[in-house]
Amino acid sequence: MTFSKSTKILIVGLGVIGGSYAMALTREGYRVSCITKNPEDIDYALKNGMIERGTSEIDPELIREAELIIFALYPTTFIEWIRENQHLFSPGTLITDVTGVKCEVVEPVQSMLRPDVEFISAHPMAGRERSGVEFADAEVFRGANYIVTPTERNTPEAIEICKELGRVLGFSRISELSPEEHDKMIAFLSQLTHVIAVTLMTSNETPNLEKYTGDSFRDLTRIAKINDAMWSELFLTNKGALLAEMDAFMDEFSEFRRMLEEGDREGMRQKMRESTKRRSLFDKPKN
Amino acid sequence: MTFSKSTKILIVGLGVIGGSYAMALTREGYRVSCITKNPEDIDYALKNGMIERGTSEIDPELIREAELIIFALYPTTFIEWIRENQHLFSPGTLITDVTGVKCEVVEPVQSMLRPDVEFISAHPMAGRERSGVEFADAEVFRGANYIVTPTERNTPEAIEICKELGRVLGFSRISELSPEEHDKMIAFLSQLTHVIAVTLMTSNETPNLEKYTGDSFRDLTRIAKINDAMWSELFLTNKGALLAEMDAFMDEFSEFRRMLEEGDREGMRQKMRESTKRRSLFDKPKN
Repeated sequence: MTFSKSTKILIVGLGVIGGSYAMALTREGYRVSCITKNPEDIDYALKNGMIERGTSEIDPELIREAELIIFALYPTTFIEWIRENQHLFSPGTLITDVTGVKCEVVEPVQSMLRPDVEFISAHPMAGRERSGVEFADAEVFRGANYIVTPTERNTPEAIEICKELGRVLGFSRISELSPEEHDKMIAFLSQLTHVIAVTLMTSNETPNLEKYTGDSFRDLTRIAKINDAMWSELFLTNKGALLAEMDAFMDEFSEFRRMLEEGDREGMRQKMRESTKRRSLFDKPKN
Repeated sequence: MTFSKSTKILIVGLGVIGGSYAMALTREGYRVSCITKNPEDIDYALKNGMIERGTSEIDPELIREAELIIFALYPTTFIEWIRENQHLFSPGTLITDVTGVKCEVVEPVQSMLRPDVEFISAHPMAGRERSGVEFADAEVFRGANYIVTPTERNTPEAIEICKELGRVLGFSRISELSPEEHDKMIAFLSQLTHVIAVTLMTSNETPNLEKYTGDSFRDLTRIAKINDAMWSELFLTNKGALLAEMDAFMDEFSEFRRMLEEGDREGMRQKMRESTKRRSLFDKPKN
């Protein structure tokens, strides 16, 4: 397939990310249809001009017509959907996704997929604290990372189309990682941070603490408001990598605790100087 | 003493917080002088209209004239300063501070202090990521908490003046805690969060991670850029309370790790629902 404004795009799963894709693509002049399970979400998207057509059924015609299909489902739902419905794809269809874990998604989907359909996986690293299509916002992709995770089963053409999709959506940085590299990176940068935020909120239930809080605590726990269905699934489908990052964090935390208990001021200062220096690398690039 | 615009205020220690006090008080029409160790900071403050007078010496006349003295020093430096120079205070002088820990500061200072001078301690819960008078900003107090930590040695009049100071500085919420309550609260809300941020930055040194980072990781590690001299001292002077909060956090983190390892999806979801609910309490109040 080629990718142009006449490409027929189908989004499966109209939550906050699927909805943001729909808004961004429609705004750029692409033709977007949608399948999602809740009919009210279709009504919302049609009413707000986010999509051209949509249905809450597995509509064979809509699937057959689609040239590019973007799956914005939870990992296990996505895998099941492919298993049950891939006979409906037209030959030559390109499929991609937005899933936040890769090893446990890319391999199963690619190995069961019909040989005349290609799956190129990608992770748009942008999200909202709230879920649901009504929180969709095409602006969320600006300044954000878009990561394509090709395998040896992917063609250079599909990789290029997937990157072009990231550019059309408005992502600021588009890069490639293997599924393994992606999952290790995401275990640290995203999943561990969510575990920490949740744990901070549940480790101290003293009443009235909120009266004394400052911005530091608010910043560290912003992501403690969390979609429990989605994140528990992301954690379980990346269990090995996340456990490894949790252990590394706990080791380092215990080491700092030992320094404090022993009154090792210089040891703590050394850690703080390291963290100050390393954190500078993570400052947001000026646009 | 009474507190009015003609009160002679002396600030000892012109860093980012002392400087912000100077700016806010001068802006409100109070008369502020200053003692700090670096002569360049005095020049800066005079040039920028932050203070009326200042010196880098222990100037007996400036100290004798002062009716209200605000100490913005590190905990141990503050205690030493009082020990060495309290003979220079005039009878009836009221002293206060900005120190971030209380038990190991308030008791030693109050018990060694001349009986004709009163020390009422307070903690302005506002800070900047950068240190030094050039980062001072009177606006940093808006929306922030100001906590007075009286003991049985304080008079109602001194407590009231200390609160009035907080109002003049522009704090949004002024409250009272005992030194013990304060230190337990600050160990959790502020010190533990700084330990976590530092530990996150030093627990994974994979190159190029910054290329893939999103706002969640940035938010959690903003405070990993840290003044190592000050924070190591704050940790060491609140060691017992901080160790207790670190242990509670580690227990909860280990519990979550166990759930993940055992594939206990419902257990993790329950923790996430708790954290989501509790985090709502900590949202910034709308002004």
